[in-house]
Amino acid sequence: MRPIVALLTDFGTGDYYVGALKAAVLSACREATLVDISHDLPPHAVEEGAFLLEAAYRTFPGGTVFVAVVDPGVGSSRRALALEIPGYRFVGPDNGVFSRILKAEPAARLHEITNRGLFRATVSATFHGRDVFAPVAGLLAGGLPIETVGPAVSDALVLPLERCHQIGAGDWEAEIVHVDRFGNLVTAVPAEVVESLLEAAGGEAAGILVYAGAARLPLAQTYADVAEGEGCALLGSSGRLELAVNQGSAAKELGLGRGDKVRLRALGPAASGV
Amino acid sequence: MRPIVALLTDFGTGDYYVGALKAAVLSACREATLVDISHDLPPHAVEEGAFLLEAAYRTFPGGTVFVAVVDPGVGSSRRALALEIPGYRFVGPDNGVFSRILKAEPAARLHEITNRGLFRATVSATFHGRDVFAPVAGLLAGGLPIETVGPAVSDALVLPLERCHQIGAGDWEAEIVHVDRFGNLVTAVPAEVVESLLEAAGGEAAGILVYAGAARLPLAQTYADVAEGEGCALLGSSGRLELAVNQGSAAKELGLGRGDKVRLRALGPAASGV
Amino acid sequence: MRPIVALLTDFGTGDYYVGALKAAVLSACREATLVDISHDLPPHAVEEGAFLLEAAYRTFPGGTVFVAVVDPGVGSSRRALALEIPGYRFVGPDNGVFSRILKAEPAARLHEITNRGLFRATVSATFHGRDVFAPVAGLLAGGLPIETVGPAVSDALVLPLERCHQIGAGDWEAEIVHVDRFGNLVTAVPAEVVESLLEAAGGEAAGILVYAGAARLPLAQTYADVAEGEGCALLGSSGRLELAVNQGSAAKELGLGRGDKVRLRALGPAASGV
Repeated sequence: MRPIVALLTDFGTGDYYVGALKAAVLSACREATLVDISHDLPPHAVEEGAFLLEAAYRTFPGGTVFVAVVDPGVGSSRRALALEIPGYRFVGPDNGVFSRILKAEPAARLHEITNRGLFRATVSATFHGRDVFAPVAGLLAGGLPIETVGPAVSDALVLPLERCHQIGAGDWEAEIVHVDRFGNLVTAVPAEVVESLLEAAGGEAAGILVYAGAARLPLAQTYADVAEGEGCALLGSSGRLELAVNQGSAAKELGLGRGDKVRLRALGPAASGV
Repeated sequence: MRPIVALLTDFGTGDYYVGALKAAVLSACREATLVDISHDLPPHAVEEGAFLLEAAYRTFPGGTVFVAVVDPGVGSSRRALALEIPGYRFVGPDNGVFSRILKAEPAARLHEITNRGLFRATVSATFHGRDVFAPVAGLLAGGLPIETVGPAVSDALVLPLERCHQIGAGDWEAEIVHVDRFGNLVTAVPAEVVESLLEAAGGEAAGILVYAGAARLPLAQTYADVAEGEGCALLGSSGRLELAVNQGSAAKELGLGRGDKVRLRALGPAASGV
Repeated sequence: MRPIVALLTDFGTGDYYVGALKAAVLSACREATLVDISHDLPPHAVEEGAFLLEAAYRTFPGGTVFVAVVDPGVGSSRRALALEIPGYRFVGPDNGVFSRILKAEPAARLHEITNRGLFRATVSATFHGRDVFAPVAGLLAGGLPIETVGPAVSDALVLPLERCHQIGAGDWEAEIVHVDRFGNLVTAVPAEVVESLLEAAGGEAAGILVYAGAARLPLAQTYADVAEGEGCALLGSSGRLELAVNQGSAAKELGLGRGDKVRLRALGPAASGV
């Protein structure tokens, strides 16, 4: 089976950085299949990186190694990390980019990457993606045991990411954690909360209201459940509540973005009206 | 021989969507070589998708499976389709994205994708690219016969795409169907029409005029046939008449775009002057 | 070992061009691993292409074939070239895109690509990337000897690229040759000059000043050596002096861009103060 190495960076696609990163992976593991998650994160957007990595990783076949390089502190004292969870390994800087993986997988094994024998012969102080993370990822993909990269460590930087709070019976408040290419607003509300609200509403989607800015949105199954140009809330493909406008941009229509708050309220038998 | 799966979407490259799509293909067919046609279609641009797919597919080696996901109606009642033509198979929504393939290949075999046993274990209502089309494409690439995906169907949505009309002896009118990255304007005029005009003009390119907006353009072989900054018309690489400005943007210089009309006139022995 | 074909173009990612290029490589070499260096060069930016190609190529495993298509003169009398240096081969137009490779590797073997038997059956006058360069690259990657592509030639177009001059003892002036995605300004100052200045300054980074516009920047090892928002100069990952702002854009903060000049001065024992 061919090893898979998946890449997530903020390098953009107009420089030689992504090509060099891939070249370094292939130099360490010639047979690797390389998959881009994204290289178009805003520069230094560690939290966005954490979001995309967690949204993507479980779809990959077992054995995939992930390289996550959003690394404003490159060459400083921030540690280089390798993580192992059942089925997957990850390499990248210890700056919070693994926050969501580590919350989802608290039993992850962590190793600090210190074994310079695995790096490229000359290590640039400003491009550890190419000179440290890519070669280590290639070697891991080729079968290197994770403990070879360096000593086990017990902690890693986890950013404060959860922003979904119950604020009353059948009432929740949550932040928008991502705006996608279509203008869909992905909230921090997980599927479980939507399900608990559905229960509280007597199992009727019509009994849940989502308050987003000045808008009051019906709960739907998919974008096309509402008329073109109309807004709705639905359980999105990353397993979170998402605000959308059918064939339009919820971000534009609602004037909301990353970090803004929305409220959910169940109007069923267990909850009062608005 | 390694199977090839080629991808065309409007997902953009800043989200996890393309990575998840590829991960799902690889989960179904670990040995696949993945090729991006484009993920930068404007959101929901089904007609643009139909254009790019038709312009690209014949260049691929035999056996390639194409995944075309421009899918504003995802999760609604629109059908999911698989197409087979000699050498190639395609999967995507039945919304017109295959219009140009179906016109070029009227004997295509069509199957509705209904076999849920082929899908990912959980199917999101908003991401059939990852959960339906990618796994089916991977399985087809790995050798699954197309009839396994679901029942044969006899029709598919074909959008009205042909906009090239003869309006007199040696006179044609056609729409611009695509503007490329360089500002080249690709018209609906096929090579045969250019050839028939060349014949009408006594075989002389100089005997064909192209009227585009206020401009009158000479027929050329390649961009560099005219001086830098000058406009011309030529037979482009997709087999259609194209308007171009050497090292400049015809779209900008001529003020024309997708949907605008141009006229062709042969001035040779068989045609009158202007 | 699977052959590697690396791609650098100005095609953008919104058209079918990159997909068709890759399809043509795979048609000639089904087992190739394809690696994108970049397709987001500004249209016709031959010098930028020369920069990215040289910055990336040495990171690739031996045997890699590079396709560099920034080709405003496509279909004109400009020659098509294949280059061979130890470990690597290159194909592309003879328009200066190989300038930096040829300066770095003066013993490169050059062949004009003329053997039409290697091309796609029909050659578009406007898409030699797909119809000439990609098939030849695929065949070279599959083992075709370079002399098969056409006759050896002794010269190739080399653009005047070096813009780093000593202007006094311990004083250098150099142009900015590239602005990256982060706004880092890559200068033409090679590592050797930085080292000679370090020697002149008594081995102290603090003894080197970089004058860039109105700014006076300290020499650092990496971005995070200075406070967030502060500027510095450092030896970048392409082996050149680079101006940067920690987690900011040097291009924006300093108001400088490609072609602008910077000065370096050593203040150590061998140099006078400012």
